[in-house]
Amino acid sequence: MITSQSNSKIKEIRRLIHDRKARDQSGLFYIEGLRLVAEAIQMRAKIEALVVAPDLLSSSFGRELIHDAATKDLPIFEVSGEIFKSISVKEGPQGIGAVACQRWMEIEMLQLAPGDQWIALDAVQDPGNLGTILRTSDAVGGKGVVLLEHSTDPYDPTALRASMGAIFAQGLVRANLEQFADWKTRSHYSVIGTSGGVKCDFHHAEYPDPLVLLMGSERQGLSARHLELCDQVVAIPMVGRSDSLNLAVATGVMLYEIFNHRRDIRKG
Amino acid sequence: MITSQSNSKIKEIRRLIHDRKARDQSGLFYIEGLRLVAEAIQMRAKIEALVVAPDLLSSSFGRELIHDAATKDLPIFEVSGEIFKSISVKEGPQGIGAVACQRWMEIEMLQLAPGDQWIALDAVQDPGNLGTILRTSDAVGGKGVVLLEHSTDPYDPTALRASMGAIFAQGLVRANLEQFADWKTRSHYSVIGTSGGVKCDFHHAEYPDPLVLLMGSERQGLSARHLELCDQVVAIPMVGRSDSLNLAVATGVMLYEIFNHRRDIRKG
Repeated sequence: MITSQSNSKIKEIRRLIHDRKARDQSGLFYIEGLRLVAEAIQMRAKIEALVVAPDLLSSSFGRELIHDAATKDLPIFEVSGEIFKSISVKEGPQGIGAVACQRWMEIEMLQLAPGDQWIALDAVQDPGNLGTILRTSDAVGGKGVVLLEHSTDPYDPTALRASMGAIFAQGLVRANLEQFADWKTRSHYSVIGTSGGVKCDFHHAEYPDPLVLLMGSERQGLSARHLELCDQVVAIPMVGRSDSLNLAVATGVMLYEIFNHRRDIRKG
Repeated sequence: MITSQSNSKIKEIRRLIHDRKARDQSGLFYIEGLRLVAEAIQMRAKIEALVVAPDLLSSSFGRELIHDAATKDLPIFEVSGEIFKSISVKEGPQGIGAVACQRWMEIEMLQLAPGDQWIALDAVQDPGNLGTILRTSDAVGGKGVVLLEHSTDPYDPTALRASMGAIFAQGLVRANLEQFADWKTRSHYSVIGTSGGVKCDFHHAEYPDPLVLLMGSERQGLSARHLELCDQVVAIPMVGRSDSLNLAVATGVMLYEIFNHRRDIRKG
């Protein structure tokens, strides 16, 4: 059992939690808690090792998880409760965590089947927003998120927590704007943008199938270059004092509008 | 000019930022930044004093604000840039803040006119969610939020920031569930609840006017007692792995669905 803060594995996990560069370089990330670890296993995320604090792991569900992992020859690091708590970013640590491999797709490989929907986010900055958007995308049956330009990390602990496990079910693509533009030109998929400055009301628009929903960043919205890439740009009307919505809310409102439009069309 | 950390006014402001009890007892709160202070003044929030760091205040808009405040006999505390930064919770402090009075309504006074919409939130815990919900309520022309039971504080700095100034335009009511139930019984206003466990699809429901939208807490959803108070309970369908949405997203999706229904009815 690991009981020392200076153990190299503990130090590596700490870096995976707090340091994006360590995550980017290793292609790994750390998740914590029964729900996320169970979700990762069920969704066949590639797990490098389980981290277990037997003192803290009280649930039989947790013990079953570990038993299963042992039968699959997954490495298990046992750590003291004190060590586990010291790396935990969760209230009420449950004594189970995992180091897992990030999963990214190349944009060239991205193909949309009928019914598919992806979200492209330009330079999203807030990991809570990104995680929440993954969670909502999962809820409407969306396939994943394309992160354009320099964005926050979906494997950041705040994003992971906000995604509520959807990170394992959603596809992830990173691309710069030119790569995205090339892909769009070659593939001819429909891109629908959202911007406050246009006349087309999101509720009266028509939504092609499949589609990519393009959302601007928290601060900037969509630039002229982004708008050029869109087959259609719609606006969510606002009648109050504010001229914008929170990005995760705006994306959620758009996703459910598209979801409803599709259901209405199927109903006829 | 105040240059000492131990100045009693600076200590009081620090408590207003970090300590809910200090806010609850004094009925005051602290806001920071040009946009929020300007919004507070414009919306006639009762301001006790402006806090200004001349070294940091570079914008002419900021200087105008202070000039206007001086003509209105508003007390102005000048502080050093160092002191201002030390109390700031914002990146790139703009050198202007204000101590203002909280504004609460009694639930007994709450009356709904045609077209009005309020949101009742049961025990909302996350200040970011609460601020974001205020922002979205403003965007759809909603009137305000009723905070049921023990909830987070809309005057928490995170909630203030997430509200993007909507806090000054939205009504705020605090009540326990029994007070809310009494009010509902006496007033006969329609309460629409949202819960995952019901059959009525939010997109196929009808929405009375005026209405109160009742949302459960992040963790618990609506209890049986809450559901009893509703004239109708609707569900937002989810087709993915997750069985819930982020609270601010779910509220935003509901608010825009109601907004669209009302527009569709007006259009005929």
